[in-house]
Amino acid sequence: MQQVYFDNAATTPMRDEVIDAISEVMKNNFGNPSSSHSFGRSSKSLVEKSRKSIAQHLNVAASEIIFTSGGTEADNFVLHSAINNLSVRHIITSKIEHHAVLHPVEKLEKDSRIRVSYVDLDAKGNIDFKHLESLLQTDTKTLVSLMHINNEIGNILDLKRVSNLCQANNALFHTDAVQSVGHYYIDLQTIPIDFISASAHKFHGPKGIGFVFIKKNSGLKPIIIGGEQERGLRAGTENVPSIVGMETALNIAFKNLEEEIEYLKELKQYFIQKCIAQIPNIAFNGNSVDFELSSHTLINLRLPLDEDKAAMILFHLDLKGVACSRGSACQSGSSKKSHVLSEILKDKDLQKPSLRFSFSIFNTKEEVDYVINVLKGMVIN
Amino acid sequence: MQQVYFDNAATTPMRDEVIDAISEVMKNNFGNPSSSHSFGRSSKSLVEKSRKSIAQHLNVAASEIIFTSGGTEADNFVLHSAINNLSVRHIITSKIEHHAVLHPVEKLEKDSRIRVSYVDLDAKGNIDFKHLESLLQTDTKTLVSLMHINNEIGNILDLKRVSNLCQANNALFHTDAVQSVGHYYIDLQTIPIDFISASAHKFHGPKGIGFVFIKKNSGLKPIIIGGEQERGLRAGTENVPSIVGMETALNIAFKNLEEEIEYLKELKQYFIQKCIAQIPNIAFNGNSVDFELSSHTLINLRLPLDEDKAAMILFHLDLKGVACSRGSACQSGSSKKSHVLSEILKDKDLQKPSLRFSFSIFNTKEEVDYVINVLKGMVIN
Ligand SMILES: Cc1ncc(COP(=O)(O)O)c(C=O)c1O
Ligand SMILES: Cc1ncc(COP(=O)(O)O)c(C=O)c1O
Repeated sequence: MQQVYFDNAATTPMRDEVIDAISEVMKNNFGNPSSSHSFGRSSKSLVEKSRKSIAQHLNVAASEIIFTSGGTEADNFVLHSAINNLSVRHIITSKIEHHAVLHPVEKLEKDSRIRVSYVDLDAKGNIDFKHLESLLQTDTKTLVSLMHINNEIGNILDLKRVSNLCQANNALFHTDAVQSVGHYYIDLQTIPIDFISASAHKFHGPKGIGFVFIKKNSGLKPIIIGGEQERGLRAGTENVPSIVGMETALNIAFKNLEEEIEYLKELKQYFIQKCIAQIPNIAFNGNSVDFELSSHTLINLRLPLDEDKAAMILFHLDLKGVACSRGSACQSGSSKKSHVLSEILKDKDLQKPSLRFSFSIFNTKEEVDYVINVLKGMVIN
Repeated sequence: MQQVYFDNAATTPMRDEVIDAISEVMKNNFGNPSSSHSFGRSSKSLVEKSRKSIAQHLNVAASEIIFTSGGTEADNFVLHSAINNLSVRHIITSKIEHHAVLHPVEKLEKDSRIRVSYVDLDAKGNIDFKHLESLLQTDTKTLVSLMHINNEIGNILDLKRVSNLCQANNALFHTDAVQSVGHYYIDLQTIPIDFISASAHKFHGPKGIGFVFIKKNSGLKPIIIGGEQERGLRAGTENVPSIVGMETALNIAFKNLEEEIEYLKELKQYFIQKCIAQIPNIAFNGNSVDFELSSHTLINLRLPLDEDKAAMILFHLDLKGVACSRGSACQSGSSKKSHVLSEILKDKDLQKPSLRFSFSIFNTKEEVDYVINVLKGMVIN
């Protein structure tokens, strides 16, 4: 049976070069980077080389990149330490952030009794900059945590604009860039951001590894403590093969970035056109169909059916070999509604099944044809 | 040049079968285990199969195994949550625990103002059970955290005895078993323990993955929050290839455990005999030379030289291709003295250089001959 994978926002297939790089390190560089002998030093030099090249892609210093076990740890780390070590008493975020941001924020609100403000959103999930600006008018030390690319609807945040507002109002700025690192150029010399979270498995790298960019002299302290790894900012024996795998994935991503963006834009355009042409009354969520305001990596569509058909639809798509999702992967198993769509859609639209299709350079127009055909069959019959 | 690796307590070379298993998963099972489609389900089933077989080795339920990014995270998780969620206000531990236990304990003492008691040790690093018992005479909710195998001197803790004391006194018991899982049989039905930390790279598995055994209904809450992975106890996309790699490593370890223990005991015996025969005035730290009280995986010896030669010695060993360490890997780069030896040695012995040699089944007697020869040359000249 044909198998088509359109769930790249949940996770991506690894590139062959990445698998090879990891296998190579597993075979030949098993030393502990903290060991002072030759086995240790060769591992250490791999880790530092990876750190340097990842830093270069973001135009920052190597010492500003700290490896973590993924995007979730990176988010937890920044949020937790901002409150506990940087005297932040106010977090501004939005209701459509990933749970790796929302849940730590809710916990910090409860445990540390900080103030949390959620910036207003419009019906497409765009943040209200006027509201953000007004929330920033405070003497309380503030951290803004707003994601770069929304993982469910693909909305792009204007990082520059948020960064300017934060600077003007003396607030710290964290962005969960898990869906954008490896898919977008981010130059942190042009756009000053204090903290960025990233995760390798979203850009054809391995799972279980990510990094956080931490601006120099930020004062952040580790949440996982023990040994002196990562300049004292993250204890635990470094995951050398995965770090090299992440570097390899990011190197390839940046090498081909222009072309891959073009390829994906065309694929997404094709997907949208086909949808509109073949599925009557289809609608799109967030900025999905706007190529300026939404990522080339995904589309979130709404079918003209009853919500009670949603589970059945995913089931049918799966039977036909089509992998996509309702929202983020973490909730795809549950029947819970997407917290993102619940936030922005009107009740009557929320009653209809929404699906996220997310793309990678391994997808083709033929796969799109196949999917649209399947979708069409389900909607029309 | 000959290269011999005697630093297996810092990290171990990966078994070929483990590398193959990981590569296989990286190639064929990239799905996110939280995704409900077929790609996700096949990853999920790998994760659950691994969980089940790891649980079987410890004779516990699969639901009691939670995957973490390694031993350090496992230690932090248990200690942190015991204080924050289980009303523990008193920790009993020892000064010779790994920093992944000591540093979180110190931080909790400071931040949460709990009471911390350090159990007395004798000159070989054995805990004083009478003292432990007296420390347990309290109405304050107590957690005992004592490691199974000490990573520097190899001392074995009598888990059964500690477990009995804890049960009799209504205390929780956590053991950092990072140096013993995969090297010892641990049957948790015979010895009831509440929490165990383990790390795959210490038993020929991958770095960056470990697990914590958490006894059913313990009430532990996650430190890394976000998605609902790991039954809500550890958020973040699961590291599927590494989890399978860890399972593979543990399966092989247990399959060959009897023979490998025999092999290592003989190797260690040979190492000790050669040392005594060829290096005048050599001494051993902790229970190193006692096969009942010390692990077959390592030896910690003290050379009859001035401490100022210690750095030079490691340097020379390294030049000769011999990898060993002064203490734990995390401090091997620094000139800091081992916190373990500082705790148990008399000043005059602490002035002499101590070295840890740690073994794996990939080491041979020929390698031992080579090392002893190098050591001898340094001591006698
Ligand atoms: C006893 C002990 N506990 C914890 C750790 C930390 O494990 P990891 O490096 O997997 O975080 C180690 C080794 O590094 C160890 O030897
Ligand atoms: C926006 C966003 N943030 C954070 C995460 C969590 O990353 P990880 O799974 O690497 O922990 C994800 C995906 O899972 C995500 O899409």
